[in-house]
Amino acid sequence: MTELLPNIVAGRRVLGTGTGTVLRDPVTAAELVRVSREGLDLDSAFAQARDVAGPALRAVSYGQRAALLGEIAKILQANRDAYFEIATANSGTVQADSAIDIDGAIYTLSQYAKWGAALGDARALLDGPRASLAKDGVFASQHVLQPTRGVALFINAFNFPAWGLWEKAAPALLAGVPVIVKPATATAWLTQRMVADVVDARLLPEGALSVICGSSAGLLDRLQPFDVLSFTGSAETAALIRTHEAIARRSVRVNIEADSLNSALLLPGEAAGSETFELLVREVAREMTAKSGQKCTAIRRVLVPEQLYNATAQAIGARLSGITVGNPRNAAVKMGSLVSREQFDHVLAGLEALGAQTERLFDGTRAPLIDADPAVAACLGPVLLGTRDADAAARVHDTEVFGPVSTLVPYRDLDHALALIRRGEGSLVASLYGSDDAALATAALALADTHGRVHAISPAVAKTHTGHGNVMPQSLHGGPGRAGGGEELGGLRALNFYHRRAAVQAAAGVLDRLAAAPWA
Amino acid sequence: MTELLPNIVAGRRVLGTGTGTVLRDPVTAAELVRVSREGLDLDSAFAQARDVAGPALRAVSYGQRAALLGEIAKILQANRDAYFEIATANSGTVQADSAIDIDGAIYTLSQYAKWGAALGDARALLDGPRASLAKDGVFASQHVLQPTRGVALFINAFNFPAWGLWEKAAPALLAGVPVIVKPATATAWLTQRMVADVVDARLLPEGALSVICGSSAGLLDRLQPFDVLSFTGSAETAALIRTHEAIARRSVRVNIEADSLNSALLLPGEAAGSETFELLVREVAREMTAKSGQKCTAIRRVLVPEQLYNATAQAIGARLSGITVGNPRNAAVKMGSLVSREQFDHVLAGLEALGAQTERLFDGTRAPLIDADPAVAACLGPVLLGTRDADAAARVHDTEVFGPVSTLVPYRDLDHALALIRRGEGSLVASLYGSDDAALATAALALADTHGRVHAISPAVAKTHTGHGNVMPQSLHGGPGRAGGGEELGGLRALNFYHRRAAVQAAAGVLDRLAAAPWA
Repeated sequence: MTELLPNIVAGRRVLGTGTGTVLRDPVTAAELVRVSREGLDLDSAFAQARDVAGPALRAVSYGQRAALLGEIAKILQANRDAYFEIATANSGTVQADSAIDIDGAIYTLSQYAKWGAALGDARALLDGPRASLAKDGVFASQHVLQPTRGVALFINAFNFPAWGLWEKAAPALLAGVPVIVKPATATAWLTQRMVADVVDARLLPEGALSVICGSSAGLLDRLQPFDVLSFTGSAETAALIRTHEAIARRSVRVNIEADSLNSALLLPGEAAGSETFELLVREVAREMTAKSGQKCTAIRRVLVPEQLYNATAQAIGARLSGITVGNPRNAAVKMGSLVSREQFDHVLAGLEALGAQTERLFDGTRAPLIDADPAVAACLGPVLLGTRDADAAARVHDTEVFGPVSTLVPYRDLDHALALIRRGEGSLVASLYGSDDAALATAALALADTHGRVHAISPAVAKTHTGHGNVMPQSLHGGPGRAGGGEELGGLRALNFYHRRAAVQAAAGVLDRLAAAPWA
Repeated sequence: MTELLPNIVAGRRVLGTGTGTVLRDPVTAAELVRVSREGLDLDSAFAQARDVAGPALRAVSYGQRAALLGEIAKILQANRDAYFEIATANSGTVQADSAIDIDGAIYTLSQYAKWGAALGDARALLDGPRASLAKDGVFASQHVLQPTRGVALFINAFNFPAWGLWEKAAPALLAGVPVIVKPATATAWLTQRMVADVVDARLLPEGALSVICGSSAGLLDRLQPFDVLSFTGSAETAALIRTHEAIARRSVRVNIEADSLNSALLLPGEAAGSETFELLVREVAREMTAKSGQKCTAIRRVLVPEQLYNATAQAIGARLSGITVGNPRNAAVKMGSLVSREQFDHVLAGLEALGAQTERLFDGTRAPLIDADPAVAACLGPVLLGTRDADAAARVHDTEVFGPVSTLVPYRDLDHALALIRRGEGSLVASLYGSDDAALATAALALADTHGRVHAISPAVAKTHTGHGNVMPQSLHGGPGRAGGGEELGGLRALNFYHRRAAVQAAAGVLDRLAAAPWA
């Protein structure tokens, strides 16, 4: 049998019992490794993290914890080749797609190391200025942010085993909050390996970083009022999590990132073939195929003026026709596989569901695979769907197909376009394509309440913009409504989730001592 | 039969059907008015608020909406005498206690009018500075806050029919979000009357402020993804609300304020009879009796060094012995009644529950009532309980008796005191009493993660501090864990709940136009 990966809790490797669950190569179906958490003592794992590792982390300053993040980034950098090998084998991704996950993780860690260093010796944060509460100015209110005395549990998705861990763990550890990650089983290997490498370096207090691979059963039962929970996954599971006693009764703070029908909008007045038009076409094709469309932020709906429907379909189709699909180990392959044959089946089912309300404008599903057996591999070429009746095609606005699939949606005027985008009922990101700065600003503000991020692309930033789907740690990641209502990243805003805000009302002489107060 | 109060939705008075529910004078049991929302068209009420009133509110600037708050404050001020009459009759409160609710509401509205005026002509808010995302500095990220396109539903508690509405409605209306309030039935009259007065003045768009009196059945079913919900009440009901589909599936943002075992802590080293000691004694007696202890922020646990247990009991008891109880219409009465005979029974049951683990250090329950029939009136004198074994008396740390009841808790040293306070598992407020600024600062930070507010009282602020239980709009109101995890007030921080945050990533030329962008 293949190797059974150990869980890592309280700083120690602990093998689960039983045969566990097999992780496979999604291209060849080869067995890679196994995971199991059967028999694991969850109570001890959570207690060690909460009661021992947490106080140890919080015994040092933000600046010192930021330095630890920098050390972690170095460890990951040193083991980068091994991570790419695991990604190729277990996620079926080409190098460029593995880099989004792995290099994205390292970049995010490095940024938090930098931002955290600026917090220096502090052990709590001041939030805003003092407000006077008495005419003599002596009695006043000062808000502070204090790290929560609990653990952070991450229940993560299969598509970002590296970045999905570190984009959350960086602010958590910087805040002094220990992390327990439960990666999605299908791609748990890379998460487990990264945690193993960091724990082996003995930088962190024992139990400050744990990984539990396999079932999530019973994890939420361990959460106490000052713990926090982050979940990335389906809206269905998110609803179950929200009704769990830990959240409903114990007020455990929860951050959810769920389904999202992200949009790309070509503003009115932009001509076919213009630079702006080409920027949209390039970005849509890139977002459809990067990581085989398995990004929560990928473009699912492409909105263009109705008279540009055919021209846009042709231009995107032309780009997609150049995408070769198959085994990521072959240098001729531009797009690898989906993460599993199960996801492959989900995408086919999604295409079927959308089929009744759309036409296929480009169909890459029949193109031959390179170095991959279509009966086995989770490889699927890109599909551009389109609808002639954007208002009637309800499924286009509520069904997320998590693969290389997007739908072209024609609109009549800007108000119509904005209304169609809002039918997503809250999304992670919308991108705008236009040549008029004022029009871009107006549309960006109009979509700001229903999106966590609005990415505006104009010719001035054609070469420098960071991409519709790339999540930059400087910017908020999350979205309201269907997208789950969560907030991640956004620079030091990410610390909010791991801190509690309090108003301290006291004499000026007391407030003067707050920043320098010894840690209790 | 007594008058049936109309509901007010879409700017119109709408009488419910049936005989409705009777509201009574808690001192005399006299029938006052009736309420009913049977037959009310909730769908229309919510649609009018969300689709008509909301856009109308957001069509004007923050500054203009702030001016509306100022006008509302004037209307309330003009009708203040009528409100005090309703409070006396329906809440059984003496003038000073009615003022906490009514004048507290007017003050809070006035503060938001002032703070909102400073936002001027803006229609969206910039959140933090730009972050550069490209080496040339042209492509950058700017976070913005945009009002949510939904309604704010408030399900409020019986103890603050005036302030409980306006402390939430002030920031909601300032944000451009229409309000639907469902007051607790027992004291709905004052809320309904205030809404009626404001709606009659025709300042606001029709449907911007609605009141629905009676059952809350079906209200949550109407909530859509961009609506928000505030609930103040029991932890039991809060748990039910959190599992409702609107929250669990539709990601409706919810703010909850629930049970709280607030503490007052005399720091180690303060002598019996010292000025600091007397400050604690005075504050505890005031908090126990203000509004008959029916404040979410009232002191429930009084922590003193164990050698001061007897002295503190005597000093608090001496103050409580001066509290006369009865009909608030009699000028000799210092403390009126509880809000209803039902609450009276709840408090007696709470005393019974705590009785097994405490002794009665002061018992005001047998003192004669003034102008009130003890068989009928919901009047109850104050009770100071005490425990000799703070660690074993579990109920003291988890059972909130919502009346003039507090428990004296002796501690060994500061760490013991902090651990005992934290057994409340998250509270709204803790107050500290000490003469050493550094010790107060240390204790304040140590409690900041488990409390929404820490109120430090030292001799320097003996005459100017704003009181343990008074909620100042400048400071956060809410608390983690058992207290529900909510955040209200805190100056303009209150706007966060009614806004959505988004990162706009664009060329500098686009970001330059954000603040001045026309509203879409």
